Amino acid sequence: MDNKLIQPFLKNNKAMLLAYDHGFEVGPEALLGKSIDPEYILDLAVKGGYTGVILQKGIAEKYYAKTDYQKKIPLILKINGKTNISPKKDPFSSLNCSVEYAKELGAKAVGYTIYLGNNQEEKMLAEFGQIQERAHQLNIAAIAWTYLRGSSIENEYDPELITYAARIGLELGADMIKIKYPGTEESFRKVVQAAGKTKVVLSGGPKLEDNQFLEIVESIIRAGATGIAVGRNVFQHEDPLLMTDRIKKIIFNS
Amino acid sequence: MDNKLIQPFLKNNKAMLLAYDHGFEVGPEALLGKSIDPEYILDLAVKGGYTGVILQKGIAEKYYAKTDYQKKIPLILKINGKTNISPKKDPFSSLNCSVEYAKELGAKAVGYTIYLGNNQEEKMLAEFGQIQERAHQLNIAAIAWTYLRGSSIENEYDPELITYAARIGLELGADMIKIKYPGTEESFRKVVQAAGKTKVVLSGGPKLEDNQFLEIVESIIRAGATGIAVGRNVFQHEDPLLMTDRIKKIIFNS
Amino acid sequence: MDNKLIQPFLKNNKAMLLAYDHGFEVGPEALLGKSIDPEYILDLAVKGGYTGVILQKGIAEKYYAKTDYQKKIPLILKINGKTNISPKKDPFSSLNCSVEYAKELGAKAVGYTIYLGNNQEEKMLAEFGQIQERAHQLNIAAIAWTYLRGSSIENEYDPELITYAARIGLELGADMIKIKYPGTEESFRKVVQAAGKTKVVLSGGPKLEDNQFLEIVESIIRAGATGIAVGRNVFQHEDPLLMTDRIKKIIFNS
Amino acid sequence: MDNKLIQPFLKNNKAMLLAYDHGFEVGPEALLGKSIDPEYILDLAVKGGYTGVILQKGIAEKYYAKTDYQKKIPLILKINGKTNISPKKDPFSSLNCSVEYAKELGAKAVGYTIYLGNNQEEKMLAEFGQIQERAHQLNIAAIAWTYLRGSSIENEYDPELITYAARIGLELGADMIKIKYPGTEESFRKVVQAAGKTKVVLSGGPKLEDNQFLEIVESIIRAGATGIAVGRNVFQHEDPLLMTDRIKKIIFNS
Amino acid sequence: MDNKLIQPFLKNNKAMLLAYDHGFEVGPEALLGKSIDPEYILDLAVKGGYTGVILQKGIAEKYYAKTDYQKKIPLILKINGKTNISPKKDPFSSLNCSVEYAKELGAKAVGYTIYLGNNQEEKMLAEFGQIQERAHQLNIAAIAWTYLRGSSIENEYDPELITYAARIGLELGADMIKIKYPGTEESFRKVVQAAGKTKVVLSGGPKLEDNQFLEIVESIIRAGATGIAVGRNVFQHEDPLLMTDRIKKIIFNS
Repeated sequence: MDNKLIQPFLKNNKAMLLAYDHGFEVGPEALLGKSIDPEYILDLAVKGGYTGVILQKGIAEKYYAKTDYQKKIPLILKINGKTNISPKKDPFSSLNCSVEYAKELGAKAVGYTIYLGNNQEEKMLAEFGQIQERAHQLNIAAIAWTYLRGSSIENEYDPELITYAARIGLELGADMIKIKYPGTEESFRKVVQAAGKTKVVLSGGPKLEDNQFLEIVESIIRAGATGIAVGRNVFQHEDPLLMTDRIKKIIFNS
Repeated sequence: MDNKLIQPFLKNNKAMLLAYDHGFEVGPEALLGKSIDPEYILDLAVKGGYTGVILQKGIAEKYYAKTDYQKKIPLILKINGKTNISPKKDPFSSLNCSVEYAKELGAKAVGYTIYLGNNQEEKMLAEFGQIQERAHQLNIAAIAWTYLRGSSIENEYDPELITYAARIGLELGADMIKIKYPGTEESFRKVVQAAGKTKVVLSGGPKLEDNQFLEIVESIIRAGATGIAVGRNVFQHEDPLLMTDRIKKIIFNS
Repeated sequence: MDNKLIQPFLKNNKAMLLAYDHGFEVGPEALLGKSIDPEYILDLAVKGGYTGVILQKGIAEKYYAKTDYQKKIPLILKINGKTNISPKKDPFSSLNCSVEYAKELGAKAVGYTIYLGNNQEEKMLAEFGQIQERAHQLNIAAIAWTYLRGSSIENEYDPELITYAARIGLELGADMIKIKYPGTEESFRKVVQAAGKTKVVLSGGPKLEDNQFLEIVESIIRAGATGIAVGRNVFQHEDPLLMTDRIKKIIFNS
Repeated sequence: MDNKLIQPFLKNNKAMLLAYDHGFEVGPEALLGKSIDPEYILDLAVKGGYTGVILQKGIAEKYYAKTDYQKKIPLILKINGKTNISPKKDPFSSLNCSVEYAKELGAKAVGYTIYLGNNQEEKMLAEFGQIQERAHQLNIAAIAWTYLRGSSIENEYDPELITYAARIGLELGADMIKIKYPGTEESFRKVVQAAGKTKVVLSGGPKLEDNQFLEIVESIIRAGATGIAVGRNVFQHEDPLLMTDRIKKIIFNS
Repeated sequence: MDNKLIQPFLKNNKAMLLAYDHGFEVGPEALLGKSIDPEYILDLAVKGGYTGVILQKGIAEKYYAKTDYQKKIPLILKINGKTNISPKKDPFSSLNCSVEYAKELGAKAVGYTIYLGNNQEEKMLAEFGQIQERAHQLNIAAIAWTYLRGSSIENEYDPELITYAARIGLELGADMIKIKYPGTEESFRKVVQAAGKTKVVLSGGPKLEDNQFLEIVESIIRAGATGIAVGRNVFQHEDPLLMTDRIKKIIFNS
């Protein structure tokens, strides 16, 4: 099957996604300054030329659905999530939005986190299975956050495990996976190879030094990644549009 | 989406709600004197000019639905609840009414408690997700009681956590949240900011000294709150209508 | 809502119910002599002038449904139950009959036990919530056995707790509650008051001395109870019809 | 309700059933010689004049459904089961066939094991409740294997407990129960009495000496049992048809 | 019932299946060289004359469904699976694809792993029960991987247990079982006998010496097996087509 479902998020076959679920996953302290305001972020996403924006249900419903933003930038609705209030060794990200509702809110894709190496891994694999089918039946894409987190994981950046996680994304039918950086371009190349026809985007992670972050972006693009999903490295930057432009050049001119 | 669903409970964009679920959550000893009688409370709600009343299913069905009260004051049906008989470190408030049934009983909103920092947090996040969708499909509002209670919580009035809880209310798509007082006007201002387009009302809590309570009301109104949900501070007061008038002045004349 | 659903079980607004689920809950040793035979009991219920009979599904299906008894005495189908074979500190009474099936078997009400102060309390509150709605949709009454049993309960006859249990019955929308005797008329008066528009019947319990039992019945009737649900105090009596007459006089002539 | 559903398995109001689920419950080592072959057993059931045969889903589907056997002998489909591979103190017999599917395969009854005195008793009571209703809606009988097995049981042949188990079968609406031998004719008489309109058949159990087994059959028939469900005492016998004839004489000429 | 559902995978009543779910179950390190690429494997399956290919949902959807492969080789969709990231004493293979979706992707059979001797055995027996029914209703075959793995199993190659597992496959209604090699031809013969009308294929397992593997294939074919499901012993071989030819001769010329 040629994957048309992921096309809305691609430009020249590359993706630059703006993630904004930190208010749920990390807490408001991650949303410095203006970034506490969803409209500020949506404006940034449009002005910055992002190929998609990632929101939780409530932000999508109150700030995106049935607004002009819906015409300007496609939405990935993150349909599961966990808070940072009671951290656990084996975290579970619970489903708070149905695929149907995501589509009603204008989403062209749903996002779902699977924690591998976790004692509730089985439950998440099964739930993603259902979500993937429902998404495809409704003609939208299913994107998996394939992370390594749980009591079986010592190093969530282990290249072999990240490669395995990428393969699981393919085997489960994800149209795209969002994945951590395994440390080197060479290891990321294996990740992309294992993922096959499933697109791979880098998970941006916490704020880094500009150059450090941009080198990673270069590395994963050279390794064949489709792009990145960035959040704090842009909206915690003193000049988010400037940082966006730097990233954009790497992704789309490569 | 401009939030029309919460409008029935607003007057000049402010809310003064009378909560009456203490017979379930606290026990009859909270219902001193006449307040054991639901009709007394409903009369008080109407006479006092409250913009909404909060009831559990049984009271709504036997005292409110298909009565004149239904025309006089809108209903928030609290659809989950727990008793105080076997207190737990990680309490769970179980769903005892469907959204459909709440609507049949005349409710214009459903209320649902989420205990954050609780080892069953995941289950409540998921359940609220379903309730929020069903409520909106049925064209009624979804209101979250976003409280911090569970084995991960040392201080349920921690300003940072309350701000985080407020944000979770927004991210989950609550139309309004009911939340504890974090101690200062300044901290409540952050709560309101984090909640964005989700309305914020104060949870009244146990009976306080009149002035102490009224100062809190003033503080949260100055901080941008939509209003309060009050119970014992009114109906355990020697003159509930007098106390109501004092609160009303603060909320609507501010 | 004026409660028409409970009317089939009332005569002069009072109820005298014959309970016969002991074969399930206690074991056949509670069914001395002829009382092992359901037809004997049904005859007794009719001859004694009971206003209702309480049966588990199997007895109802094989001895009551589509028989003449159906025309002579209304049925409360007890839809959950537990055996006495493996007693637990926190007992759970599992649902063995749907509300729909109860209605098919001719029931005008369903009965459901909630053990409060029990570590599975949450599950029972939620399940009763669903049953209550289904019963009302099908136009039959929902009756709650609101008992205090579980690891949080030291004394299941504690007046304050029984009053609380009664209130929970009202808040959950029970049309009638079956409840233990808290020891005094005065305390039972508070129970009745807390229950509001929910009817209150006494749970008869194990066999007592005649006078002791009859005094309790007098006490609860004076306190405003609707009546009793009696079992062993009648059918373990040497002259069940005589005992029935004595009870009847107290309930209906009061 | 006059019980027509169980009629297909009765001849002169008595039943002689051939049980053949040992390949699942005990393992192939119980299926000595030719008895490993389902067709051998089905032939034996027909030739021996059994009034019913008890099979698990797979054997029914591949050897019975849509074959001539379907016209010659009625089927009880055993819809739950457990293996003997990981024995537990509190065994649970899981449902592997729906009532609908059982009917599609030609079953005139479904069989379901309930282990009483077991820490999962509640779950089995609830599940049987659903099965019983579904069976009756589809116009087939519901048969309960009411056994005493679990951490609360010291002696699964305890006469009082078997009597209690029989009563539970009646209270739950079983059309027939399969039950262990409590040791004496007198105790079995109480079992039959407690079961009321629910038919009682003996569970044959492991291979015994011929006379020992036949005396038990005589005893339970004198006590009022409807008959037996026999397996190993016939097909592990050197001359299964001879043994069948001896049993038949006791059951049908009594 | 004559088993037509399994026919698509048989040639002269024998089966040679290519299994390719190792990217999920073992990890990408099992997919040496070209075998990381699903198209390479699908080409191999077609060229090698395999009678079926076994894939997880994602590979089927992106590489097989609606491609020419669908016309060239029938698909068994493996609908449950577990990862190797957090190994457990009692592994559970979770369902990640519905039977309906498998059929939409072109599958002619679904595959499901049951771990016997496992503390979650009950759950897997029940789930397979549902899958088997749904598959047959949709007119496709249900294939069980009946493995012995869990805290009750000391030796997963124990001949008696494998024979028992085979019988369970029959009793549950599997159309085919995939099973481990119990060590000898004689023991495999008992496996085949216990399975009755359920077809038996050998699970290939990890890479062995050529001769060692081929002798096992010869042994199981002589014992009456229907064939094998091979993976690593072919695609980790230096000349997969050569190895395929050797296997093919044994299976189809026997």
